[in-house]
Amino acid sequence: MVKNIPEIKNKIFERTQLVVIITDADQEDNPIIYANRGFTELTGYTEEEVLGQNCRFLQGEDTDPKAVKKLKDAVRNFEAASIDILNYKKNGEPFWNQLHIDPIYIEEDNKRYFIGMQKDITSFKHAQKQAEEYYREIELLSTPIVPVGEGVSVLPLIGNIDGERVGNIFEKVLPVLERENAEHLILDLSGFTNMDEEATVGIFQLSDLLKLKGIQLIITGITPQIAMKTKELDISSSNFITFRSVRQAVEALERNDI
Amino acid sequence: MVKNIPEIKNKIFERTQLVVIITDADQEDNPIIYANRGFTELTGYTEEEVLGQNCRFLQGEDTDPKAVKKLKDAVRNFEAASIDILNYKKNGEPFWNQLHIDPIYIEEDNKRYFIGMQKDITSFKHAQKQAEEYYREIELLSTPIVPVGEGVSVLPLIGNIDGERVGNIFEKVLPVLERENAEHLILDLSGFTNMDEEATVGIFQLSDLLKLKGIQLIITGITPQIAMKTKELDISSSNFITFRSVRQAVEALERNDI
Repeated sequence: MVKNIPEIKNKIFERTQLVVIITDADQEDNPIIYANRGFTELTGYTEEEVLGQNCRFLQGEDTDPKAVKKLKDAVRNFEAASIDILNYKKNGEPFWNQLHIDPIYIEEDNKRYFIGMQKDITSFKHAQKQAEEYYREIELLSTPIVPVGEGVSVLPLIGNIDGERVGNIFEKVLPVLERENAEHLILDLSGFTNMDEEATVGIFQLSDLLKLKGIQLIITGITPQIAMKTKELDISSSNFITFRSVRQAVEALERNDI
Repeated sequence: MVKNIPEIKNKIFERTQLVVIITDADQEDNPIIYANRGFTELTGYTEEEVLGQNCRFLQGEDTDPKAVKKLKDAVRNFEAASIDILNYKKNGEPFWNQLHIDPIYIEEDNKRYFIGMQKDITSFKHAQKQAEEYYREIELLSTPIVPVGEGVSVLPLIGNIDGERVGNIFEKVLPVLERENAEHLILDLSGFTNMDEEATVGIFQLSDLLKLKGIQLIITGITPQIAMKTKELDISSSNFITFRSVRQAVEALERNDI
């Protein structure tokens, strides 16, 4: 059984899944001496356009100079480097390049080369950025404090909030309450889901904090699940008043029942 | 100048950035006849453990049977296939494999092979899932409707909301308003940012819709930016009342001024 692996390996270089160039580190300006099909397809340049060039033609307006410097240093010192760098195709379209360069010494020629292996990680960077933007949006949305009357504000806590976010929310809410000269904060938990222990404790610790600031905490919409949790955690309810709903709390405040 | 590219190419197969196997399509069960260092490092298996095996040992509990079938069909028909598949390392750790297989015919041997090129895209899949989860959370957070009095609810619209999301919000809000027997909805725009045309129109169309349901729309917190936009878009304000703040609207309602 013949296993013609060298020939198959050679064919792998024709696959667009592999994006690779070879540069000659002993020539001035480290020019490209080989670019495979994956490289020409990704970048849009022809083999003729890239051979003999230093690969800085991939850089553009928004390429991070720090990434470029890291690359240059590695080439100068004949060292390996891995870097995510914003590169540009021939048509001007930017793409995120997960670039790995590796120095190679070929003894029989007494010559030094670099291998450059590229991966287009634009969709990964996009998903990452999307997630970050959404997270900031969530942070913003988590603090919908609504002043509903003289000295009364409502803060509905909605969704799957963990202990850390509870902390962040209260950090943002306190200055707002002070600015509004709030005397009462109605914290509505009816839309609150998946509460973990840390979040529960965090919420009920708020009452102590508010008391110090002279603000009365009113908690509404306590679900049976939350009620059980507070019992489990032995949380004292002496520092806050509860009502079934925001409406009942507002009405009690109007009647001066609190 | 000697350019020893075949030897350099050979060295590329020792890089872990390239993950590749070769299988013998003419042998029963398409066994692996070559695995490079990238493959053994990614999967944790040694060369000895993988040579002679069909690569189904990478599959596990949560691998999608549809992906496996697509792979099997491609092998049977000696066709190329690209697929994202959940695979497992030797230590049991799952990873997302962006797998590309390619049939190769080597004429001089009259033999058929497959190249399998793998990419670990676990971090991409993770970022994507994260973004999706955050988006669902945002949808939930965008509808913090707060009933504040008999027949009065407040809906603060917060953040960077586009036209589509405005539509989604109102779709969720209407049944809540009906359930609450709401007579007035206070829509607070003070936390609303980056409004595009579609979103602006959507918001002000809500007043017509609510009127049909017998609900009076009160809009508060209209920023100068929004005011200019409504003028630009020639939006009629006959179907809604405005107040500077939620508090003023609530107080006017208490005094029966509306």
